[in-house]
Amino acid sequence: MPDSMYGLVRDLYPICRSITGDGVRATLARIERDLPAPLVRSEVPTGTQVLDWTVPNEWNIRDAYIAHPDGTRVVDFRASNLHVVNYSVPVRARMSLAELRPHLFTLPDHPDWIPYRTSYYAETWGFCLGQRALDALPDGDYDVCIDSTLAPGHLSYGELVLPGDEPAEIVISTHVCHPSLCNDNLSSIAVATALARELAARPKRRFTYRFIFAPGTIGAIVWLAQNRDVVPRIRAGLTMTCLGDASPFTYKRTVGGRAEIDRAAALVLRDRGQGDHEIDFFPYGYDERQYNSPGFRAPIGSLMRGRHGQFPEYHTSADNLAFVSAERLAESLEIVRGIVDVLEANRTYQNLAPEGEPQLGKRGLYRATGGTNIPDLNLAMLWVLTLSDGGHALVDIAERSKMPFASIRAAADLLRDGGLLAQSRDAAATAYGS
Amino acid sequence: MPDSMYGLVRDLYPICRSITGDGVRATLARIERDLPAPLVRSEVPTGTQVLDWTVPNEWNIRDAYIAHPDGTRVVDFRASNLHVVNYSVPVRARMSLAELRPHLFTLPDHPDWIPYRTSYYAETWGFCLGQRALDALPDGDYDVCIDSTLAPGHLSYGELVLPGDEPAEIVISTHVCHPSLCNDNLSSIAVATALARELAARPKRRFTYRFIFAPGTIGAIVWLAQNRDVVPRIRAGLTMTCLGDASPFTYKRTVGGRAEIDRAAALVLRDRGQGDHEIDFFPYGYDERQYNSPGFRAPIGSLMRGRHGQFPEYHTSADNLAFVSAERLAESLEIVRGIVDVLEANRTYQNLAPEGEPQLGKRGLYRATGGTNIPDLNLAMLWVLTLSDGGHALVDIAERSKMPFASIRAAADLLRDGGLLAQSRDAAATAYGS
Amino acid sequence: MPDSMYGLVRDLYPICRSITGDGVRATLARIERDLPAPLVRSEVPTGTQVLDWTVPNEWNIRDAYIAHPDGTRVVDFRASNLHVVNYSVPVRARMSLAELRPHLFTLPDHPDWIPYRTSYYAETWGFCLGQRALDALPDGDYDVCIDSTLAPGHLSYGELVLPGDEPAEIVISTHVCHPSLCNDNLSSIAVATALARELAARPKRRFTYRFIFAPGTIGAIVWLAQNRDVVPRIRAGLTMTCLGDASPFTYKRTVGGRAEIDRAAALVLRDRGQGDHEIDFFPYGYDERQYNSPGFRAPIGSLMRGRHGQFPEYHTSADNLAFVSAERLAESLEIVRGIVDVLEANRTYQNLAPEGEPQLGKRGLYRATGGTNIPDLNLAMLWVLTLSDGGHALVDIAERSKMPFASIRAAADLLRDGGLLAQSRDAAATAYGS
Repeated sequence: MPDSMYGLVRDLYPICRSITGDGVRATLARIERDLPAPLVRSEVPTGTQVLDWTVPNEWNIRDAYIAHPDGTRVVDFRASNLHVVNYSVPVRARMSLAELRPHLFTLPDHPDWIPYRTSYYAETWGFCLGQRALDALPDGDYDVCIDSTLAPGHLSYGELVLPGDEPAEIVISTHVCHPSLCNDNLSSIAVATALARELAARPKRRFTYRFIFAPGTIGAIVWLAQNRDVVPRIRAGLTMTCLGDASPFTYKRTVGGRAEIDRAAALVLRDRGQGDHEIDFFPYGYDERQYNSPGFRAPIGSLMRGRHGQFPEYHTSADNLAFVSAERLAESLEIVRGIVDVLEANRTYQNLAPEGEPQLGKRGLYRATGGTNIPDLNLAMLWVLTLSDGGHALVDIAERSKMPFASIRAAADLLRDGGLLAQSRDAAATAYGS
Repeated sequence: MPDSMYGLVRDLYPICRSITGDGVRATLARIERDLPAPLVRSEVPTGTQVLDWTVPNEWNIRDAYIAHPDGTRVVDFRASNLHVVNYSVPVRARMSLAELRPHLFTLPDHPDWIPYRTSYYAETWGFCLGQRALDALPDGDYDVCIDSTLAPGHLSYGELVLPGDEPAEIVISTHVCHPSLCNDNLSSIAVATALARELAARPKRRFTYRFIFAPGTIGAIVWLAQNRDVVPRIRAGLTMTCLGDASPFTYKRTVGGRAEIDRAAALVLRDRGQGDHEIDFFPYGYDERQYNSPGFRAPIGSLMRGRHGQFPEYHTSADNLAFVSAERLAESLEIVRGIVDVLEANRTYQNLAPEGEPQLGKRGLYRATGGTNIPDLNLAMLWVLTLSDGGHALVDIAERSKMPFASIRAAADLLRDGGLLAQSRDAAATAYGS
Repeated sequence: MPDSMYGLVRDLYPICRSITGDGVRATLARIERDLPAPLVRSEVPTGTQVLDWTVPNEWNIRDAYIAHPDGTRVVDFRASNLHVVNYSVPVRARMSLAELRPHLFTLPDHPDWIPYRTSYYAETWGFCLGQRALDALPDGDYDVCIDSTLAPGHLSYGELVLPGDEPAEIVISTHVCHPSLCNDNLSSIAVATALARELAARPKRRFTYRFIFAPGTIGAIVWLAQNRDVVPRIRAGLTMTCLGDASPFTYKRTVGGRAEIDRAAALVLRDRGQGDHEIDFFPYGYDERQYNSPGFRAPIGSLMRGRHGQFPEYHTSADNLAFVSAERLAESLEIVRGIVDVLEANRTYQNLAPEGEPQLGKRGLYRATGGTNIPDLNLAMLWVLTLSDGGHALVDIAERSKMPFASIRAAADLLRDGGLLAQSRDAAATAYGS
């Protein structure tokens, strides 16, 4: 599985993606090969009104370069699709270096790296290149070519829904609009794909799972505009970004900050105990800001390793195949699976022997000889019994007891099988929304 | 009084107690000699269903030993009743040391101490001894004798109720099932007995006080099963354990964590300012876990010095007469009395001159000459006047003002006597339950 | 303006004020010269019942001294009005130094400073002087004269009301009863006067502003007794004290601690970032304790630099013209203006494009080219859009975002002007009261 995640990243890396265009379609097609079922694809025409936005023209690009008059390419789209400012309008001109310069973008602090830039909503063009490459360009005239089209077309996205016992949905959303950047966000595409495969293979799912592979911002906005009826069913969700690098995990909370997903993610990171942390919501980052907007307030947090704009390789050519690894992808899958498992298991129980402590011994649930060494499972059973008054879900009990969620869940399973717990109303009454 | 507390511990020390049997009865009889009124004794027959439990067979023991074939006792119940695993079934056999070994328990880290072990709910037998004593036993055959009976009988406990002006009850509960262990829990039996004597001598008690002397776990369960009607009247309570050693005080909160008893105990420990502390509820320890179970949620916390399982002498022969002292028992009585006094005084008042600050001077409540040195009592009066709007009890005011509860109470008394305060509804409306 | 504030302090400094008398009247007359409109003056007769108090006799003083029999004054009211215990009854007597001593007050730790003492509610007399001056007095007889009158008269205070668009009032209250003490409280009188002038000059005021210049304690009590109908209209307020010295600012919260004024003041001090801080309410200090009393609970906090009783010069002759400065007064005016500006701007909005993030670009509110450098204003706009669901006022948003209130306000203005925000119900629903 880790290998297949890295393999998917490797296959997707060369494709030039944007918020529209054939790169997205090729990406969805390749993802689909690793999914347990076909994606439901949507193609939304240019000009469609979506919430406060309008679907833009579709952008496609075939080639681009800056060349000496003799034809030698000094900047070549074929070498890296980051060389072209994403959504550049077509250009074919000869101009002096001085005329060209306002269209050239570099990272002086990282002279060998190519920056990633976009211009979705202003019609312009440009090239990105290393500072050292720029410095090496002699004065003189250059042939400039961007063989792109920016014209009415469609915006593409794909979805996979895995039905569960309950209609309530868990949403996993990843943006698929970045070109050759591995951590941001091929890593998350790979993790989401692997998770979908795992969940599809389970004999039983409590919740319905929806995987959204869509361009950032405008894609989430299109999805929301077309799925207003789904939003109230969203019980929890994650946008996933930058899950392939070596940073510890960061979970960014929903606007409300105490939704079930916030608490589930916090428990999983806490139980891992490796320096991961949580941050409060802020209205920047990725598509969690669309899902959390006042008109929707869907309880969707965000999971990441490297944080948006906070690692040097972010949005540069250094976010390449060497920057991510199969091992890190596997860890990320493990975390996401852990969060899903907390959500699946987070039930609220009623202690059926609520007066005093039930006699665990006579049910084979307790070592009969007294002593002072309390196995965690015994203590976990006592915590579950103490708090299972219909007002505490297992997540509450894990928080309050400071015990691993896995211990609490195992204890609840034992007690339920022993006839000491009955399922109570769903904790979701409080968990829904923010 | 301190001497009499230590005297009670000394008298009770040799008795071999268990969760049933004549040791408990002898203990209750000796306690009664120091109480202001006879205990109400209950004898509950073996087999009685109590909550989720059944009253077990009664256990009594007369003698036990391991002896050389020549009759020399190498382990002798007459030297310490800890030598026998509590609730051991009768044994009379000759066996080799190898056969005997699975029945022998030691503490390798404390080679001279005898551990305390029980086997209430599994019929077995065993001996406890020092590791050094075990190591000194030569191979060979031994005569093993446990002259015990485990047969239908009764479980015994005792209660003392001191009526007060209000039917609401303050419960003081101590377990009386441990054999020769002084801190755990003869110390608390002695403190409870002394407190009962003091409270009985008071001309006036606001609340009704109930002292429960019962075996741990099964005793509290029996009491709860037989007193369901009393539980709703419990306004506050304490289980008391390990109150004779030199540790600072620890108060363990109720499940709810904000009951009146939690706040009263916290104020008393805070005002003492000697490194005492509070801990959150956890479902282990002593009988507070029965009282706090979901079906009862009686607001009963726990006061202790040495903590359950956290001092080396815990459940060993080192918890002896030298491990506790009259001085520590006296300090413990002082703390419990302090908590009782906070509860008795914790009234909610209405400021009768609520508009602006009343003129304390004309009532003789304020020094007439201005100045900058504010005696605490003046400041305490201002705090009481400021917060006595019917929504704050004296405990709230002591917490908010960070002033000693004694200052707040004295200020309230002065103001009430000066006609500036009227008693409002009882703070118990919020304090009941957890 | 700073100069005029210091000039007002300088002019008021020599006047001998008390809680009643011509000194207060002269003070109000001088203040009025710097105000934008005449003060509404109240003269309340001696003996009037006000809340729990009675208006005392009026005190006036013309001269006072201690002199050698030859007429040489060794303590002279003409040199400093602090020399006489405020509210001293008339005295004209010859007595020995020994007889005189119980009437003499000094500060041994500051031997050259004259203390400030009062005796409003006990009829007595006394002199205050430097310890060094006292030590230099030879034994012998002295002529003692206090040429005062303490007789039925009136208590005087003044008010200025600047009407606003809304009837809700912001109250600024300063005590005017201290004689020659500059920081306490001529500084605040000067700041209040300057603020009144500024607010009067504004073309538009959202709220009604009420400036109260009244004697401490009894003055506030008189005002409250005569303005019960105004109290429910008080949306926020400040008592201002000691605003001329070099201490960082301290804001003392209302009793409730979360009123709008508490949060506005906290934001202004936070945004200033210079070591200022907030403290909880306590029932001592200045007139905030009258306004916050249970019968009124007006949401009035207190702003100060040097804290009541906590700087050495407090209530001594060292609180003189050199202890305050025009620069510090100007800083204080800036803080108070800042708080007023937060209150004026603290509206609650509804995001009119609540589904997803509105497209700021098409409204000219966002730089069109993507990038990673987020100007604060863009981020502030996103915060305002995210939280403007009718449940968060701008103060909430500034707290949550940790962004400067000025950024949040500017962002809200831009968004409102861009048609993206509509004013929602007033935040005052929650802000009123404490």
